[in-house]
Amino acid sequence: MLEQLKQRVCEANLMLVKKRLVVLTWGNASAVDREHRVVVIKPSGLSYEAMKPEQMVVVSLDTGRVVEGGLGPSSDTPTHIELYKSFPGIGGIAHTHSLYATAWAQGKREILPLETTHADHFHGAIPCTRELRKKEIASDYERNTGRVIVERFRTLNPLELPAVLVASHGPFTWGTTVEEAVENAVVRERVARMATETLSLNRSAKSMSRALLDKHFLRKHGKNTYYGQMKN
Amino acid sequence: MLEQLKQRVCEANLMLVKKRLVVLTWGNASAVDREHRVVVIKPSGLSYEAMKPEQMVVVSLDTGRVVEGGLGPSSDTPTHIELYKSFPGIGGIAHTHSLYATAWAQGKREILPLETTHADHFHGAIPCTRELRKKEIASDYERNTGRVIVERFRTLNPLELPAVLVASHGPFTWGTTVEEAVENAVVRERVARMATETLSLNRSAKSMSRALLDKHFLRKHGKNTYYGQMKN
Amino acid sequence: MLEQLKQRVCEANLMLVKKRLVVLTWGNASAVDREHRVVVIKPSGLSYEAMKPEQMVVVSLDTGRVVEGGLGPSSDTPTHIELYKSFPGIGGIAHTHSLYATAWAQGKREILPLETTHADHFHGAIPCTRELRKKEIASDYERNTGRVIVERFRTLNPLELPAVLVASHGPFTWGTTVEEAVENAVVRERVARMATETLSLNRSAKSMSRALLDKHFLRKHGKNTYYGQMKN
Amino acid sequence: MLEQLKQRVCEANLMLVKKRLVVLTWGNASAVDREHRVVVIKPSGLSYEAMKPEQMVVVSLDTGRVVEGGLGPSSDTPTHIELYKSFPGIGGIAHTHSLYATAWAQGKREILPLETTHADHFHGAIPCTRELRKKEIASDYERNTGRVIVERFRTLNPLELPAVLVASHGPFTWGTTVEEAVENAVVRERVARMATETLSLNRSAKSMSRALLDKHFLRKHGKNTYYGQMKN
Repeated sequence: MLEQLKQRVCEANLMLVKKRLVVLTWGNASAVDREHRVVVIKPSGLSYEAMKPEQMVVVSLDTGRVVEGGLGPSSDTPTHIELYKSFPGIGGIAHTHSLYATAWAQGKREILPLETTHADHFHGAIPCTRELRKKEIASDYERNTGRVIVERFRTLNPLELPAVLVASHGPFTWGTTVEEAVENAVVRERVARMATETLSLNRSAKSMSRALLDKHFLRKHGKNTYYGQMKN
Repeated sequence: MLEQLKQRVCEANLMLVKKRLVVLTWGNASAVDREHRVVVIKPSGLSYEAMKPEQMVVVSLDTGRVVEGGLGPSSDTPTHIELYKSFPGIGGIAHTHSLYATAWAQGKREILPLETTHADHFHGAIPCTRELRKKEIASDYERNTGRVIVERFRTLNPLELPAVLVASHGPFTWGTTVEEAVENAVVRERVARMATETLSLNRSAKSMSRALLDKHFLRKHGKNTYYGQMKN
Repeated sequence: MLEQLKQRVCEANLMLVKKRLVVLTWGNASAVDREHRVVVIKPSGLSYEAMKPEQMVVVSLDTGRVVEGGLGPSSDTPTHIELYKSFPGIGGIAHTHSLYATAWAQGKREILPLETTHADHFHGAIPCTRELRKKEIASDYERNTGRVIVERFRTLNPLELPAVLVASHGPFTWGTTVEEAVENAVVRERVARMATETLSLNRSAKSMSRALLDKHFLRKHGKNTYYGQMKN
Repeated sequence: MLEQLKQRVCEANLMLVKKRLVVLTWGNASAVDREHRVVVIKPSGLSYEAMKPEQMVVVSLDTGRVVEGGLGPSSDTPTHIELYKSFPGIGGIAHTHSLYATAWAQGKREILPLETTHADHFHGAIPCTRELRKKEIASDYERNTGRVIVERFRTLNPLELPAVLVASHGPFTWGTTVEEAVENAVVRERVARMATETLSLNRSAKSMSRALLDKHFLRKHGKNTYYGQMKN
């Protein structure tokens, strides 16, 4: 079963490159197997060009230690683990330094819901964390990155808002599966870019109405969806 | 005859992807057969990758109900129907969430005619609708989207201005055929982008003169055209 | 000999598409044969996809009338002829509606020399014409477009500044050959884009010093060039 | 041994094109062989299309004269030599007129460290030189370009900040090898673009905290690195 998950995590990482969300080695995707309490994640600093499923690293969800794999895991692994522990409904995470979302993270601004495709996927503004404090950087830095994300979501539902911007760093997205996490990363990058272009035309652009936001999110999610084909 | 129309509608939808006006499943093109009073349109939420002509859905222009096809039609079908009913001269419609036109729709600004290729295709500014009201969103949302477009065109000629921006949503274009609707979408995206780049250089850029606008529109449309090769 | 010129003009037109300076049919390149007093130019409104050398149209430099070819010439032909008549040193012209240069033409701003690659090719700012007057549009429009360009160059040397922006229209470039005209179009688009990006960082960016402008232009042009390989 | 270096320098130059950092002939990469006191560099003004290792030019690090090769060296060779002489730890240099970094050089602004991938590669802001003076342009121009770079680094460590913007000109990067110089050019262009996009969202965006800058730079460089795979 883990072989299959390694395959999917490897493909998700390669998809981030294909969708132009990752340059060099700047990104990582992971999936959690909650039954076996392990996370499967990309190795650290490895080139994407010859990446293979068997190179994916398996780490314990409880201890963070490598339990399988000959390579070291992504340096961002403690961030992923923190999110898996705090957001029980999620199954996969994708982290990138994609151009537009990172610009919003650098600018330390949340991405307002300006248009219907944003509302189709994110039930509100994509939030931005606070900066990490000096001592949060000095020790346990990557784990603290996860903690400021969780702190930001205290009053938010991570399943209705599957993305965040980490200030001065970049975006993380998630989903019920690693494939959904990647799709949410694609959408997040696109709405980030559309929001950037909108601001250049109208610096005081405002969020869409709550009615329109709800309409679009709820026609694709929840009980009364009517977008797409019914799944029998 | 409908087989041929399904073929053309399928190709038009794929052309929107090829011209980079559509990402994921965010777009749809349709054509009307006014003699048989049906609209042929893309299925809802279907991936473009293996899209085939026989998957196109046929709906009644009068009732909006599916009359042929095993899949559900695009959720935007009621918008298309409203436009076909109100604009008798049009034969095809294309809807996208393309980057630049959507930014103008999010910024809620009309696209001024700044340059001659705009004037070659659109006889004036590309207008933007008002926002939908809460009750227009709550029920009959997609049909009301069509209605605010029609409302915006009360004093405009849809055949001389074959494009609109729906506020907080995105652009629709049309034409006498579905192929023309797609070409107008390509031009609209390009003039939207050129207008964005112009504003970044000169925030108070003004419309071209009426004389120049008329000159370019009328040398390509109407009785005295002299652009392109004469059709014998 | 004209067959060879048709071949070169056809290739130059296709190069404009390859270099992404032309979308749809929005552009044209021509060459002059001053000995035979003819201009070879692209046909009007023809798709680039199957364009062939034998479709190029030959028009008289004196009368503007077609002297060879079964298709009508580009509607911009009178503009080209006006430039060939007024700028005796030029051998080719390229006209596009490329994104960035057109934005500067729409914004009605000259492109300042901000950086050395601009100075390598253009010995000063790329100028912008005035708007055409109502009566200049009403009759002889395309010829008058050439005239406002020539008017703008009254005190400028077209061989040292082989590009212009026509206000509310788009750019024209030229060169001693049609190939040079196309290369100058490539460079003009690039410096236009770099200038746009510069303005977004520093709205009061100024021209480079005259000393640096002269240094770069003159190390590539004139008697004391030392850039590139010596031609024996 | 020089054959190998020519091969690497040729590949580095072609990589600049592949990574879209160079258009036309606007760029050059070189490597130094400090033992033999020579620099291997691209020929001047040569098209990249058929570039071959044996065309690379070998010049003396001491006299700047060609010691091997039938073509003239890049006109920027004296700049490279000045940097090799002044920065003893570097082994390769890449110069481009890439879009975003050049815009910062034209805007005469240093690129602030706004985000972690910047900090992973550059231990502070990427600096911008002063303008050259009139007499520095009039004679020994290319060598003086090197000198203003060295002047700018008087209090900076070129191995911790392997990039510079030359005002009104463009960027230079370097590294311990020519391959590292090219990688640093790729990263520099990306962080330049991300910084541009950030400024468009937040014109008063500030540098990240010193703590975060040090954290990221030092987890990849120096004694206590823990990013990537350990090299045994």
